[in-house]
Parts: sequence; C-alpha cells; structure tokens
Amino acid sequence: MSAFKEEDRTSSGFYVTKEAPIEPSNPIPTPKAEAPDILRCAYMELVVTDLAASREFYVDILGLTVTEEDDERIYLRSLEEFIHHNLVLTKGPVAAVAAFSYRVRSNEELDKAVAFYEELGCRVERKKDGFVKGIGDSVRVVDPLGFPYEFFYETEHVERLAWRYDLYTPGALVRLDHFNQMTPDVPRAVRHLQDLGFRVTEDIQDKEGTVYAAWMRRKPTVHDTATTGGDGPRMHHVAFSTHEKHNILAICDKLGALRRSDAIERGPGRHGVSNAFYLYLRDPDGHRVEIYTQDYYTGDPDNPVVTWDVHDNQRRDWWGNPVVPSWYTEGSLVLDLDGNPQEVIARTDASEMAKTIGADGFSYTRDGDETKGFKLGNQL
Amino acid sequence: MSAFKEEDRTSSGFYVTKEAPIEPSNPIPTPKAEAPDILRCAYMELVVTDLAASREFYVDILGLTVTEEDDERIYLRSLEEFIHHNLVLTKGPVAAVAAFSYRVRSNEELDKAVAFYEELGCRVERKKDGFVKGIGDSVRVVDPLGFPYEFFYETEHVERLAWRYDLYTPGALVRLDHFNQMTPDVPRAVRHLQDLGFRVTEDIQDKEGTVYAAWMRRKPTVHDTATTGGDGPRMHHVAFSTHEKHNILAICDKLGALRRSDAIERGPGRHGVSNAFYLYLRDPDGHRVEIYTQDYYTGDPDNPVVTWDVHDNQRRDWWGNPVVPSWYTEGSLVLDLDGNPQEVIARTDASEMAKTIGADGFSYTRDGDETKGFKLGNQL
Amino acid sequence: MSAFKEEDRTSSGFYVTKEAPIEPSNPIPTPKAEAPDILRCAYMELVVTDLAASREFYVDILGLTVTEEDDERIYLRSLEEFIHHNLVLTKGPVAAVAAFSYRVRSNEELDKAVAFYEELGCRVERKKDGFVKGIGDSVRVVDPLGFPYEFFYETEHVERLAWRYDLYTPGALVRLDHFNQMTPDVPRAVRHLQDLGFRVTEDIQDKEGTVYAAWMRRKPTVHDTATTGGDGPRMHHVAFSTHEKHNILAICDKLGALRRSDAIERGPGRHGVSNAFYLYLRDPDGHRVEIYTQDYYTGDPDNPVVTWDVHDNQRRDWWGNPVVPSWYTEGSLVLDLDGNPQEVIARTDASEMAKTIGADGFSYTRDGDETKGFKLGNQL
Amino acid sequence: MSAFKEEDRTSSGFYVTKEAPIEPSNPIPTPKAEAPDILRCAYMELVVTDLAASREFYVDILGLTVTEEDDERIYLRSLEEFIHHNLVLTKGPVAAVAAFSYRVRSNEELDKAVAFYEELGCRVERKKDGFVKGIGDSVRVVDPLGFPYEFFYETEHVERLAWRYDLYTPGALVRLDHFNQMTPDVPRAVRHLQDLGFRVTEDIQDKEGTVYAAWMRRKPTVHDTATTGGDGPRMHHVAFSTHEKHNILAICDKLGALRRSDAIERGPGRHGVSNAFYLYLRDPDGHRVEIYTQDYYTGDPDNPVVTWDVHDNQRRDWWGNPVVPSWYTEGSLVLDLDGNPQEVIARTDASEMAKTIGADGFSYTRDGDETKGFKLGNQL
Repeated sequence: MSAFKEEDRTSSGFYVTKEAPIEPSNPIPTPKAEAPDILRCAYMELVVTDLAASREFYVDILGLTVTEEDDERIYLRSLEEFIHHNLVLTKGPVAAVAAFSYRVRSNEELDKAVAFYEELGCRVERKKDGFVKGIGDSVRVVDPLGFPYEFFYETEHVERLAWRYDLYTPGALVRLDHFNQMTPDVPRAVRHLQDLGFRVTEDIQDKEGTVYAAWMRRKPTVHDTATTGGDGPRMHHVAFSTHEKHNILAICDKLGALRRSDAIERGPGRHGVSNAFYLYLRDPDGHRVEIYTQDYYTGDPDNPVVTWDVHDNQRRDWWGNPVVPSWYTEGSLVLDLDGNPQEVIARTDASEMAKTIGADGFSYTRDGDETKGFKLGNQL
Repeated sequence: MSAFKEEDRTSSGFYVTKEAPIEPSNPIPTPKAEAPDILRCAYMELVVTDLAASREFYVDILGLTVTEEDDERIYLRSLEEFIHHNLVLTKGPVAAVAAFSYRVRSNEELDKAVAFYEELGCRVERKKDGFVKGIGDSVRVVDPLGFPYEFFYETEHVERLAWRYDLYTPGALVRLDHFNQMTPDVPRAVRHLQDLGFRVTEDIQDKEGTVYAAWMRRKPTVHDTATTGGDGPRMHHVAFSTHEKHNILAICDKLGALRRSDAIERGPGRHGVSNAFYLYLRDPDGHRVEIYTQDYYTGDPDNPVVTWDVHDNQRRDWWGNPVVPSWYTEGSLVLDLDGNPQEVIARTDASEMAKTIGADGFSYTRDGDETKGFKLGNQL
Repeated sequence: MSAFKEEDRTSSGFYVTKEAPIEPSNPIPTPKAEAPDILRCAYMELVVTDLAASREFYVDILGLTVTEEDDERIYLRSLEEFIHHNLVLTKGPVAAVAAFSYRVRSNEELDKAVAFYEELGCRVERKKDGFVKGIGDSVRVVDPLGFPYEFFYETEHVERLAWRYDLYTPGALVRLDHFNQMTPDVPRAVRHLQDLGFRVTEDIQDKEGTVYAAWMRRKPTVHDTATTGGDGPRMHHVAFSTHEKHNILAICDKLGALRRSDAIERGPGRHGVSNAFYLYLRDPDGHRVEIYTQDYYTGDPDNPVVTWDVHDNQRRDWWGNPVVPSWYTEGSLVLDLDGNPQEVIARTDASEMAKTIGADGFSYTRDGDETKGFKLGNQL
Repeated sequence: MSAFKEEDRTSSGFYVTKEAPIEPSNPIPTPKAEAPDILRCAYMELVVTDLAASREFYVDILGLTVTEEDDERIYLRSLEEFIHHNLVLTKGPVAAVAAFSYRVRSNEELDKAVAFYEELGCRVERKKDGFVKGIGDSVRVVDPLGFPYEFFYETEHVERLAWRYDLYTPGALVRLDHFNQMTPDVPRAVRHLQDLGFRVTEDIQDKEGTVYAAWMRRKPTVHDTATTGGDGPRMHHVAFSTHEKHNILAICDKLGALRRSDAIERGPGRHGVSNAFYLYLRDPDGHRVEIYTQDYYTGDPDNPVVTWDVHDNQRRDWWGNPVVPSWYTEGSLVLDLDGNPQEVIARTDASEMAKTIGADGFSYTRDGDETKGFKLGNQL
C-alpha cells in the first residue's frame, strides 16, 4: 500500500499526513508497562581507541568543553548545556558506542524504565551512583533492537556557558541535537520507539511501502533519534548543533587549515528531511558526527508527518548533491552491558543506496522526469 | 530578602537558582481546578486602525504570509507554521490587542480552561466555531491580570512553507516566538502564570527583592510570554523568530531603504536576558514587534533559573547599548471580551527605567565600578 | 624545473613566490605597442537559445536587475553596479559567448587596444556607438588565443542600487567578479595576458612544470580572468559576487525549492585557490556561472604569487570535496566577430582531471601520505 | 551654492555627481611636483600609555596577529596581510598617533614624496632603514594639515594567514581598511588630499554648501582615509575589516562576555555613507577603532560621487540610530616628527552635531517631514 496520495502532496514535493504511515510486519510486543517520560537525548558514551587523538578532535578542533577528565574518560559538553556532559569518551579496545543516554523527567521514571524493559525480556541494570561521573541514579538496558540505552534524571549541574562568548570558536557547538541508529528493519524499530513514547516527524518510503528511514522526537525538534535502514544494530551518527550555518562552514575551513579535510565525509549541505543545514565528519575512530542547525518546531500533537519518496533526489540533500556510499554503509558497533560488541544483523529490505544510485537505481529532481532530472553531480 | 547569593553567581555576572525566587505579596488565589495543558503561544489578534497600512507593514515589509484575508481581517503566518495563522489583523477604531492566543493539547483542555477561569471569577466565553477563521472550538477569557487570553486546539492545517525558499525574503520570519505583557505587579502576575502552568526561566530583580520583569515558558524556549513591570494590563510586544542574525539586520536595511527607519525603536542588539539577538519595531499603530533569534533550550524540569541584577548594564543589552525610554513606557491597550479597552493601572513598584537611567539611577558594566562602568552610549 | 622549493612553502601547504614562475614554450610575441589600461572585467555577452528561459534563470532565480530589454537582448546588472550592464543575454541559434568585455580607463585606451591587436595580426573592429546598448565607443577583437575580447570606456550610468535593500533577495548578487577561459596551453595564454597588463595571483602546477591553471587580475582581487587548461578557446565560467556566504547557500536552497537543483554543478565550497567561497551553476544553455565571495586584496606590485601542487587535494576545494568531471571537461563555445563559433583545439598537456582522479591520478590531503590522505568523498 | 540638484537625487535619497562638488575657500597650493603613487593605507603607528593593556585589547580581544614585539613596540597584522604590520603600538607618555602610513608603488615614489612636501614647505624626514621594524626606506612628513604622514614601499614579507582558519576567531579581522582624520576645514583638506592623488567617493554637505565630512580613496574601496570636520588635526579612527557582519557582532558579544561592553562607543549598525556595516570601539587609551565590512567597488575613474544631506537622518546610520556625541567630539592627538603633540585648532564651520541634534538641529527620515521623521531613538 503506497504512502503517497496525491492529496497529501505539498508544493515542495513531499507528502504530509497526520500520523506516520508505518506498519511493521514483525512487531515487538507493546509492553503493558508505561513508558518512561523521556525529555531528550542527553549524551552518548563513545568508546575510543586513542583518548589523546579523540581529545584533539573533539576539544581542540570541534571546541567542546571539558567538564572533567581522567586517564580513562573525558566528559564533554556543548556551550549551552547545564548538565554534566553531552559526550563521554571512554578509552577501550574497540571503537563502539557504550550508551545512547536519555534524560527522563524524574527518578520515578527510572522505575518505569525498569518495568518497561523487563516486560520486554531485556537485560536491565540500575546503578544508584550512575555508570559514569556526573550522573546519578541510572538504568542501562540492551533494548529489543540491540541498542544500549540509558535513562537518568540526576545529574551534576555545571555552568551554562552560553553567554561566555570569549570561549566561542567560529564553529561553536551549542547543543547536542540527536542520535541516529542503523537498524535492519525500520518499521519494527519505529513501532518500538513509538511504544517508548517517540513521535515520528519524517520518514523516507517508496511506493511499495518499504521504509528506508524515520525520524522521531521527544523534545520538539525533528528528532532525538532516527532509524536508518542498514545492517545493525549500529550507531550511524551523533549530532551537535551550531547557531548558524557559517559556524558549520567554519568547521570545514578549520579542518582544511589543519590538513584534515578527509575528516569531512559528506556535506556541508541542506537536508531535505528536517530542512536543517548539515555536515558529517568522521572522528579518529571512524565514529560519525553530524553538525546540524535550523530544523523546525514539532511539538504540537498533530504536527504534520513528512514522507519523502526514496527516489526524490532532494530528500537527503535539498541541493541534489550525491550521498557518498560510505555514509550509507558504514557505522559504529554498539556494545552490550558487558562491553562486548553486539552482533550485526544484515538488512534484508531494499537498500536506499541501491534504489537510488547505480545500475538499477534512479532519482528524480522534478516530478516525472526520471532521466533528465538526474543531478549532474551524480556523474562522478 | 535578596535574590543574590554569591554562590549562585555565574562567571557571566548573573545568578542561577533551581527555581524562580519570586514571592507575590498579594497573590491571586491558586484555583483548585487543573490548569489547561498549554503547548505554546500560537497567535495574537491585533486591532489595527488602518488595515492597508498594517498589511503593508506585516506583508510587504516583514514578509509574513497571508493565509486568508477579507475587508475586516488579515490572517498571517510565519514560514514554518502549519496552523492557520500566527497573527490576525482586525480592523477597529482603537489600536489594541484583542487576544493573546495559546494552543492547548486537545479540546479536553478547553473544559479545564473554562473551569480554571470560572473558579477565578473571570468572564469566560467559548465558541465552538472559534472567534476567528481557521480556529475551531475556543475559549476566551479576561484573566485576573486583565488580559484577554484565548485557548484552542482545533485549527485548519495549512502548508508549512519551510522548504519554499523561493518565498523567503532576506529577513524571513520563521516562527512566532513569544508574547510580552506589561503589568504593574510582576510577582503577582508570575505566580498566577505559574498556576497556569508556566515555568520561569529568567527574571530581573534588585537586592531589595523588587522584581522588574520575568520570562516564562511552556515550549522549551526562554519564553512563551513575559511580564514587564509597568502600567497595565498592556501588551508590550509580540515576537517573531528568524533563523539567523543577518536576517534581522536585513530587516533594518530594508526599513532604511524604504525610508521607514523610524519604525526601528530599539536595537538590533544582543539581549542579556535570553541571550537572543533582537530588534524592536513599531508598526503603523505603534504596536511593538520584536524580531528575535537564538535563545536556548529550557525544557528540563530543573532548568537553571537566571536572575539579573537590575543595575547590571548588560541585562537588557549584552553590549551595554542604552534602552530608549519609550521601550519602558509605551505599550498597546488590551481589550475585554466586548472589545472595550481595559483600564490601565499604574505600577507602584520601582521603575526599572528610573532605577537605571537618569539622576537617581545607576548601572554597572563590571562588578563594583559604578561610575567607571557607565556605558559610553549613556552620554546621549 | 620544479616550481616547488621548500623555502617557498607556507604553513598552509602551498608555495609563494614574488612573481609567477610560468614560462611558455611557444609564446605569442609581445607587441611593441603599449597595452590598453584595463580597469576590470565589465560584462559578458552570452548568446542564449531561449531568451525567456534565460531571463527566468538570471532574473527570477538569480535576481539580476534588468536595465533594459527587447526581443533580442536583455541587459542585466548586479546591485552595486553603476555601468549599464554586467551581462547581456543575446538570442541566437547556438549557445556561446559573443564577448568578454573589459572596461578601460578612457577612450584613449581604445586606440592603444587597436594598435596592440593589429600588431598581433588579430581581427579588430571598432564601433563608435558600441556593439550593444548602453556602451559607447568600443573595440572588439579576436585575440591570439581565439577569444572575442571587447574594450570600452563610455557607458551609460545607471543607478547603483546598493542601498536599495528592498530589492535584495536572499541570494543577492552585488558585483561581477571575473571571467574564466578554457585554453589548451596555459603558459602561452598567461604570457599573452601578462603582455596585456594582467598580473598572475595564483596558479596550479606540478613538479614537472606543467601549468594547469592560472589566475590573473587588473582590479586588486584574485582575478578578472583566469585560464583553465582544457580544450579551447571556450568559456569556462562567468562569476558574480555576493556579500556573504549565506547568500550563496540561499541560492542553492531556492534552486531546491524550485526543483531545479540539477542546475547546481559543483559546490558550494571553499576554494583553495583564491580562498573564496564558491558555487557553480549551469544556466539553461549549459553556460557555467560561478557565485563567489570573499577573496583577498592583491593590489600591491609585490603581491605574493601562490602556486598550488596539482596533487594537493585541497587546491580546488579546501574541504577536499571532489570536483565533478563535467567541471573539468565542459565549457561554452566562443564566437568570432561574425558570430561563428571558434574552432576548439584539444589540450595536449596533461589533464588536471587525469592527474588527480582515477586509475593513474592521485591527490594528497597531508604532505607525504598519498594513500591515507585520499578524501573519503573520492570513494564515489 | 547648493550641492543638491533634483536631477542628481537617487531613489535612495542621496545625490550623485560625476565629481566631488567641493571648493575650498582657502586652499593649500597645489605643488608642481608630482604626487607619489600611493597604493593604499598600510599601517598606523599608535602611541599607547600601557603596552600590556593595549596588547590585551588588540591581541587577546580583537585577535590581531603579533608579527614581532619588544618592550617598546608591538607589531600587529590582520589575517590577510603579507606586509610586516598594519598597526604598531608604541609605548609613550601621551596617547597619540605617530604616523598614518601609506604604501607607495616603489622606492622612486619616495623621491616624489620628498619633493612634493618640500615644495609645500613641510618638514620631511627620510630613513633608509625605516622608522619602525619591518619597513625599509621611508619618508615621514608633517603635512600641511598638521598630520604625520608616512610613505614607504620596502617591507618584510610575512605569511598571509588567510587560509589559517585554525587561527581565526569569531570576530576575525582580515584587513586594514582605512584611516579617518579630524580636521577643522574639510574642503581645504579634501583639495589637498586630491592633490596627493586621492579621489572623493562620498561626502556630507548642507544646502548652504558647508562640507561636514568627505571620504577619499586610492585602492578601489570607499576610502583609504576620510576627513571628518572637527577640532584638529586629530585622528578620528582607524578601521579594520571582517569578512561578514556576524564577525562584527561576535566582537560585541565577546566584549560583553568580558564585561568590557563600555569599549563599544557606537553601533553596530549600517552606515549610510559607504553602505558598510560598522562598529566603533575605544581602546584602553581612548583611541577609536572601527570594525567595518562590505562597502563597494569604486575603482572606475567616473565612479559616481555620493553626496548626503547633513539633515538626512540615515546618512551616518542607515537605520536612523543616533550618533553619540563623543563620536563627534573626541579624537586622538597626533604627533609631530619630534614626538610632540600637534596643537589642535578649533573648527569654525558649522558642527554636524549641532546641525542635526539638539535644540537647533533637525534630521529627517523621509523627504519633507522634518518633525514626523525624527527617529524614535532620538528621544533619549
């Protein structure tokens, strides 16, 4: 059943509906237990193999603020943050993600999280003193999709440095914006995350009903996390916000000056999905970091859900610039609660890359013209 | 009792606490009825005396989009909006505000609004078909502070034009951001709005405990509305957002080109409060419109509350540029539900203007130096 | 003989010398006649096959101002220009360039131009009333490199619209910046243009001494024209300036909104050469237009000449983003004085594209690491 | 005789003519000797009373690059400069300007400078090794207007750091743009500077023919120097350029963060004259520094001269924001060649401040409405 009805089509070429038209064929059961009330994505714990190299990347180049550090971990935050950190770099043998951490409304929500995941049969751990510094009572789980999720409310308050313009760099990062997760079965993941309280804001589908990716939010931006179809569970990227577009360009300029432009994987560009301005970098371990700015308010319950045709050449880049294959295929391992990498399951649904690039794929710029509409950039 | 404790002082010069330290001496009773769940400020209905002149200002100069119009009313929206309008211009004999309108989570919240205000003894009206076009079931009240408030959920969805860059002007307005209300007794107003579910994010006080202004939010920005101490009830301003600072500068440039630079009342500048970049305009009837961009996320329940010293010369303008007197003293009348202007009550608490400018006032730029710290701009 | 000496290397990776180290093997004789004193590139006359389509592109999309138009020609200018036009669109059967037009210091310089080119055996035509509207006494020649060059001083003054911010679009073009010419033998072209009074500001070479491109100026910017090695004579592009980088991004956004993103051929990005921010578009006839901003002052006689290694992956894009093949291979025909296309001569020197992309090419990001340094973007 | 003819009036409200309509009543004789060929304003030597305080201001806050320094002098340059310095801070007992230094085309021009000023009866000194480090053969004079002028060609080349984005701050200064000199008799100064080879680009006059200020250039921007009517000879300001407007806003934000916002004297704003975006700061000695961006190309010999009516409220600030009195009245002393302050002569012509502000002054925003047009900001 096609998600695309002519009456839902906007003058911008995508489709809007009142609710996400996504149905999983093999759903994870919806728990009877109430989901915890998640405020927002709060921090990611990244395992890195060379702490000094990662510090150089995140502190010296990207300008994140060190809240605290020791020989094993560096705790970093963005300029407008008042909780202890938005990123933890943990030294380890294999580059991976140890936790996607969400802040909840209160400690009571942690009880709900425990019940929610126990009902789902997931492994659940709770630590009154937190798994990392600066965070109190917390719950970590391996969720039904295989991702290490954390929930917490208690945190040490640190100074919000928003007014400290003497500390700003030209590419100043001001907020953690979102996570992005690679998972083989997007509809299954979306339904589960809806059960956890997330709302879909945008997605990419085809006329046959295959869902390639979906964006979901708790705070009223386009997303706190997204699911990208691909071999998984893996982490696709973690995203920080700047105030303006020139801040993102300044990061590119600085990487050029440092002769590290090969850290730029894709962009900068304007997303179709989210309408945000973006840049994708790869850190010294290959972890993907997005720099992102200016999406839109999504907080109303009837916020229109945007669905993009996978063949729309402007869905991933509004300017039609090509997506590099690595962006589709590469991602970071995620760890279980013992620190072992989760097994990666291959996607069996159609691949967005195969559908849109190469011998069998196609993309259109304008409605109807499948040949003429090819972006010139695709010639490469 | 002073709000200023040395241990709460930040490196930026203001103070942070976990909750707003504001106590009214003469509080409005807190209703037993539950407050309606407000999503956000949604639109303002402005009465204007010359519809054509106002259309020129808001459409031709500021670039708001006309959703619908007739001989009596013009319905306008910003580029990222999907509800019917963010501003209604209604032709009338006296320039005033007919409604500060908030969107609530569902129609059920309207029942709560009715009960809430009836318990407070306020006049309440409900119209199933709305008071203006594009809005369904709505409640209008005159609140205990004398302001005409509206609540609604039902609205006609219109196209979100966020991706329609062919329609953008250099000064494109993308969102309605907030209202600002003038009221004689700020602590009394704050307590009442807290009862209605608002959270204080920032305020301006002095060591004697006088509160000069406070900012309150539902959506997780610095505010959906604010209360400015002054003769009231009056409307201080309505604010729209741009994406970037240069968009605001472009509005100034355009007003200069049109030889209407006298519509610029104050700014552009950087606010101390909110950390946003701002500009204040006056429309053809003298209604004040702010253009605003880049405040910060406030959605966590323990979001630090910022308190500014009224004598801090950077509180209203981070660059220390002077606030023009009209900005402190002038405001728009507000109407009751019959369309008659509400009586304006004089403020009896100390005036921020008197406290900071002129013979008896003082402002400091740096801690301690009351004389040397005067901003050069003050010489004028 | 290599242009690359270690002592000339800068901390940014390129080389600087006091004068362009370019020697042609087959030089065009230097005339004894004095060269005309050229002020700047002034306008290009483009032959287009569909005047309405071109008008839509240059006026409706790019926002150039129509000074004057009729059924055969449209005269366009940028916002800061006071001469009659910067671009003439002339209706014709074959898309091509009819003139690269330079303004000289006075009418007396036209006599010098005539003598200069007559000594070179070139065809020369002079018209007291100009070849197009708005221009007076002018000289047109086919230069020794095969390009149709025009020189003029007299022009109708029109209003400089720099202050007319009511006319600005988000992507406002404020100046004509430069031309770019494709020619098979770059050193030969450079020497000839030096004879005409141009100064080299930057070039791209390899260690064997092959010159791939060179930039030359009269006004003190990086260039008024440049020579790109390739089959020629052809026109590579004509460039307009914006004030800021966001203006260039706005043009991309608008093309996306109009579903014409396939007009974007390359970029946006930061040039290595010139340090400017850039975007390349293709007009409805395939004529390439660059949008450009923020190069540097070059007006001192000892301005350092910058030489880039052709294998430096950041020379063409400081962020290491790949150059699409069409950008290297495609260009516009140029006309002789009878309106017939000039024959295109194949380049015999090494091709920059072959040297840097593909099986035999290589590019480095950092000094020394030829493998590791490959830009990830190259994977496509 | 009025400079204002209706046929010269533009749609932006100012007037354009082919040449500056300025006639001195008491001209300095035009030397028979040829004027030296000046390239551009190159550096200013500022005497400062506290070298450490000035270093903090220019290096730590404004981010200028130290080329070289010792106990007596600090040599600073902007990011795009390749000559040794754009600013010399020299320790001394009285804050003043020791030299306005211009670069000329070659050493031969120094001979011309000597002859030019000797014919005018000025004191002239030439030093083969320069008056400061990094500069070779130079001529210093006290010109007929009382200003210490320097001319030089030889200079040590240093690295142009334009591509070193790792060194950029959010408010990065990229070029020295211009000087501004206070002098009692503007027409007299203009005529003399025209004799020295400067071209007028803009001026401010009244209908009675009084000239209040004029802008003059060698390089093709709006100015290399300007003359502001006032008690003099004094230095009004020295100006550095940024790439974009947000860079200027970032300087304001940083000064706020450092609690030094009282260093902001005027702005930021958009100039009417020059159309540039501006900010005026005062350094620790009170020397005025302008930060400036985006004026227009003026290099054609028939570049239209812009004349502003002194009563046009948008001439000094396109947004009509008021000019603070100190900006009109205060300036830095200038030194003779022995290091003694030049005597300051009072202006006798009408004062721009008196003409436009206060009891007898007036300014209009729109043509004709002298009362209604007052900028609201003037109320302060």
